[in-house]
Amino acid sequence: MRNAYHEQMAELNGILGHMSELAGVAMERATQALLQADLAVAESVISDHEQIVRLSAQAEEQAFALLALQAPVAGDLRAIVSGFQIVADVDRMGALALHVAKVARRRHPSKALPEEVNGYFAEMGRLAVQMALSAREVLNSQEPTDALRLQSDDDAMDDLHRHLFTVLMDRDWKHGVAAAVDVTLLGRYYERFADHAVLIGRRVVFQSTGKTPEQFVEAQPH
Amino acid sequence: MRNAYHEQMAELNGILGHMSELAGVAMERATQALLQADLAVAESVISDHEQIVRLSAQAEEQAFALLALQAPVAGDLRAIVSGFQIVADVDRMGALALHVAKVARRRHPSKALPEEVNGYFAEMGRLAVQMALSAREVLNSQEPTDALRLQSDDDAMDDLHRHLFTVLMDRDWKHGVAAAVDVTLLGRYYERFADHAVLIGRRVVFQSTGKTPEQFVEAQPH
Repeated sequence: MRNAYHEQMAELNGILGHMSELAGVAMERATQALLQADLAVAESVISDHEQIVRLSAQAEEQAFALLALQAPVAGDLRAIVSGFQIVADVDRMGALALHVAKVARRRHPSKALPEEVNGYFAEMGRLAVQMALSAREVLNSQEPTDALRLQSDDDAMDDLHRHLFTVLMDRDWKHGVAAAVDVTLLGRYYERFADHAVLIGRRVVFQSTGKTPEQFVEAQPH
Repeated sequence: MRNAYHEQMAELNGILGHMSELAGVAMERATQALLQADLAVAESVISDHEQIVRLSAQAEEQAFALLALQAPVAGDLRAIVSGFQIVADVDRMGALALHVAKVARRRHPSKALPEEVNGYFAEMGRLAVQMALSAREVLNSQEPTDALRLQSDDDAMDDLHRHLFTVLMDRDWKHGVAAAVDVTLLGRYYERFADHAVLIGRRVVFQSTGKTPEQFVEAQPH
């Protein structure tokens, strides 16, 4: 049965889903700017960031309205509080895409990345975007099983990140310390972006089942 | 006038302050482990991290109890929601101290840091600890003016962080790429630790005045 609470909660999750999508688009374009040393694209990510900030404020207002107007019961309270926490996660994803775009801008017209790590960043970018879109899907669907699947994408991200470090640490690295510093920080930005998408998945499990992901998995038929 | 809400809110902020203190202690010991390649101290930071995780859960339960039992009005709601956000910040500070300890452990019995950057990390560690303790103070006192002062400590941290990068980028850096990667990530951990302390200060301003830091400063007599 739908009631005012469910409608307003769906609206909140809709805003959060939209924010996730925007964070994904930002990371897609930031990756493009990084790989192609495309200043215009980097600038567009930087100026579009304002949209995510604006939606954050809107999502928080919506969550406060839910808390204040609906006198929610315990399960609803947990869902609304998760909403606030998701705002912080998506916000951070947007900020991390912004960091990537700023590195691309700072190094322009040079490319920030040595050729040999381009493939890693193309793939980390693809995964990051996919995870942001999955986060949007599960915010809308509230499907706990799909929400948990974000964890396996993150395992792929962690693998890439680890391999990237072996390339950096290799004695054959010929690109000097400055490039290594950029690659280190950039790798960290993608990894953290993915971590926040995983956290969104975990919070959706909590929103939709009242259980932590661990409790939810435990309660499934084996 | 004190009432049940104020008492329970003070209790929540007390738990959060205790968490900040523990995060500060963790960063102090992690820095010691890093500078002295002290494995036992690194291990103690790693095993003590559980305490912060446990207090996080306790703080969230306390905040839920406040939401559920007190039917809070708008201003109270904002203070409680800030409480949830502060849990996330302090949690992250603890995780960042843990990261530093893990780098120290991974490099043991070697030192992770080349001698020439020791001074930077000693100072970044000192500032980080000071900021964690200031966060505890303002959580307890709810003094907005003191809360804003965390921002100037963060400016000092950002300066140190910037100088650290100039050392890294210097042509005279003789310690190779692997050490540069460690220094880059470690520098980032201290900087992010400080960022979260600043966020706590900002949230205390909001808790105690209902204003954003910018609105609060604007409203002060000039």
